[in-house]
Amino acid sequence: MDGHLRNGVVAVGGNARQQFHDARGYGRPAGGNEIRLARVEAAHLLLRGDLTAVVDHDGSADRLSFAEFFVASAAAVERFALRFLVYADLRERGFYLTPARAGWPGVDAAASGVDAVDGVDGADGGNGTDGDLIDLIVPPRGTKPGDGEPVYRIAVVGERESLPADELANLTLAVVDEESEISYLETATPEFDGGTSYSPPAGITGSLIGDRVVVWDAPEGFYDHGFYGQPLEAREAIIDRAVQLSLVEAAALAAAGQLVLDDVDDTDSSADSPASHTTIRKQGQQVEGERFDRRLAVYRRLRQQDVVPKTGYKFGADFRTYNTVKSIEDLPHSERLVRVVETDHEFDPRELSLDVRLAGGVRKRMVFALTGANGDIDWLSVSRLTP
Amino acid sequence: MDGHLRNGVVAVGGNARQQFHDARGYGRPAGGNEIRLARVEAAHLLLRGDLTAVVDHDGSADRLSFAEFFVASAAAVERFALRFLVYADLRERGFYLTPARAGWPGVDAAASGVDAVDGVDGADGGNGTDGDLIDLIVPPRGTKPGDGEPVYRIAVVGERESLPADELANLTLAVVDEESEISYLETATPEFDGGTSYSPPAGITGSLIGDRVVVWDAPEGFYDHGFYGQPLEAREAIIDRAVQLSLVEAAALAAAGQLVLDDVDDTDSSADSPASHTTIRKQGQQVEGERFDRRLAVYRRLRQQDVVPKTGYKFGADFRTYNTVKSIEDLPHSERLVRVVETDHEFDPRELSLDVRLAGGVRKRMVFALTGANGDIDWLSVSRLTP
Repeated sequence: MDGHLRNGVVAVGGNARQQFHDARGYGRPAGGNEIRLARVEAAHLLLRGDLTAVVDHDGSADRLSFAEFFVASAAAVERFALRFLVYADLRERGFYLTPARAGWPGVDAAASGVDAVDGVDGADGGNGTDGDLIDLIVPPRGTKPGDGEPVYRIAVVGERESLPADELANLTLAVVDEESEISYLETATPEFDGGTSYSPPAGITGSLIGDRVVVWDAPEGFYDHGFYGQPLEAREAIIDRAVQLSLVEAAALAAAGQLVLDDVDDTDSSADSPASHTTIRKQGQQVEGERFDRRLAVYRRLRQQDVVPKTGYKFGADFRTYNTVKSIEDLPHSERLVRVVETDHEFDPRELSLDVRLAGGVRKRMVFALTGANGDIDWLSVSRLTP
Repeated sequence: MDGHLRNGVVAVGGNARQQFHDARGYGRPAGGNEIRLARVEAAHLLLRGDLTAVVDHDGSADRLSFAEFFVASAAAVERFALRFLVYADLRERGFYLTPARAGWPGVDAAASGVDAVDGVDGADGGNGTDGDLIDLIVPPRGTKPGDGEPVYRIAVVGERESLPADELANLTLAVVDEESEISYLETATPEFDGGTSYSPPAGITGSLIGDRVVVWDAPEGFYDHGFYGQPLEAREAIIDRAVQLSLVEAAALAAAGQLVLDDVDDTDSSADSPASHTTIRKQGQQVEGERFDRRLAVYRRLRQQDVVPKTGYKFGADFRTYNTVKSIEDLPHSERLVRVVETDHEFDPRELSLDVRLAGGVRKRMVFALTGANGDIDWLSVSRLTP
């Protein structure tokens, strides 16, 4: 059976509606038994041998084989090859998916923000110049497009496209690497809700030493229950109350008036930015520039939500987080890794893949803290998915 | 017992030589029973309570406690706190280590390039402006400085210092994170020596489609034994000989005259850069700029050494490598991850830590390919170490 390409859409007659649309969810009905197929759908039917050829009425009028139709479509439509690879992969996984294209079954143009321009649906996906990232809509396995709520709204991205951080919430990324391997990532907007009850007393004193603050006589439970800092100790050490704080920990405590530097006079400071806080912040900014303030904001937000953030350095992240710390003796597994990025950050899929893979390898969830200029923080979690 | 600080060195008399130097490798003899201690050594003895106080003849002439001496030294000497933390950690691990300081036992000023300027030994470490990265010299556990060949030559680096790629070979990095946790990384210069014997025939033809090349009729063993490309297939596919190549794979094959593009005329090309090669390279450079040429050079070098490089995308690297591929059916575990960087690249310790941790998690060795302007490639492997 042949298909007929006109204006970028492939028409198929005969018993196409029963055989392809009703039975397996290809295309959209077009009156009688005829259906219309998007290029990816037609290419897939050609690959499977369900279609013999596609007659190119848009061009040469030749009868195109799969290979010829594939090459012609890749030349005519941006990112066709990428979208075809993902379409074919999901078909093989038993999904009757559909291109996110106005007029196709189960596609809500408004909701998915699809582009009705022929053939180039989703062509903007991933280049960050357009809100529309969605290329494919996937109904529950075994059901047909429109039968139920989609299980995945898929944005197809090439390994080297960049992904705007603020457009990634609640979708599924299908990343096609340079060797055409596909990996799927799902995104969500998690909440933090911790159960750590320790609250440090006021009046802790410390010395600012380089890029850390040493508290020589830490209060009871400061490290053991609050998990603040790191003991400064050696075997048979004579000093067992000394705790070193990172600049972020120290700045957060100083901001709350709970920590003062021994060589700084806080008496005439306004409550919302004590002199010690200002001093520590200056040091932090000197060490890592404006990033320090954004990391500090995220640290304070997490502590406000009774979550304990500690450095995520060993995992290449800004923080690892513990929802509920009761004591160091039975410290729980840290549940999440947090990386602080700006709201207008553009992810490199390779960088995303690395973070998510590492987090998965240590049984943690990767969460990005999108920090806006106005002090807002949006949480974005990304994890691997097998459709 | 008190120490006496003069010109940045702490003198200790009494039975110091027997008690501290002969027994535990602190300091250097200075005639009779007296020894001289570097600041980190004196601070450690204070922390342990072996010294009661240090009299500061360089300054106030006060008797300084550990805390006071620590603060004073951190103010007087760059990176003192970092070096002390690592020194104390290795002492706790049972090593009688010594500062890499001219005149101290077991320190070969020439070999370790140490800085004889008082107190600031290794102060340049990690800032990339100076070849001297070595701060501490570690003899075999239980032996004293100078007794044997050092087991580690340690460069102490803060989490946010940057590390010049071309100065990292054959040393041990002690990275101190913002919470004063220490992680150790060892570096080496590995060789690649593969055993993959497949060599593709000449005259393979492919179509350049976006950022990949499709070979519609791949030769026998091209994928199965050479592990070139990725089959383009779907369940019940009618095309079983179609293989997609990445641009790097295609460019390497085209450079060797083994692949030609179906729409490019190679007849009048010079052997060393056929027209197909030029076309594919142009596409690659368009996609990823000059990085493409450096990745291509590394890919070709690895293939020349009978090693199979495949994309390392899922691991956030440029390539994963297989030393010996006989057939896809029993593909071995890939041994290494390769990231391509320029010779003058400066590593962020956080980035290094992430790469090395991920590689370790998947039982691979992390290797960096340092690509110079002249086409040279230096291999640098980095792995985690527990002293």
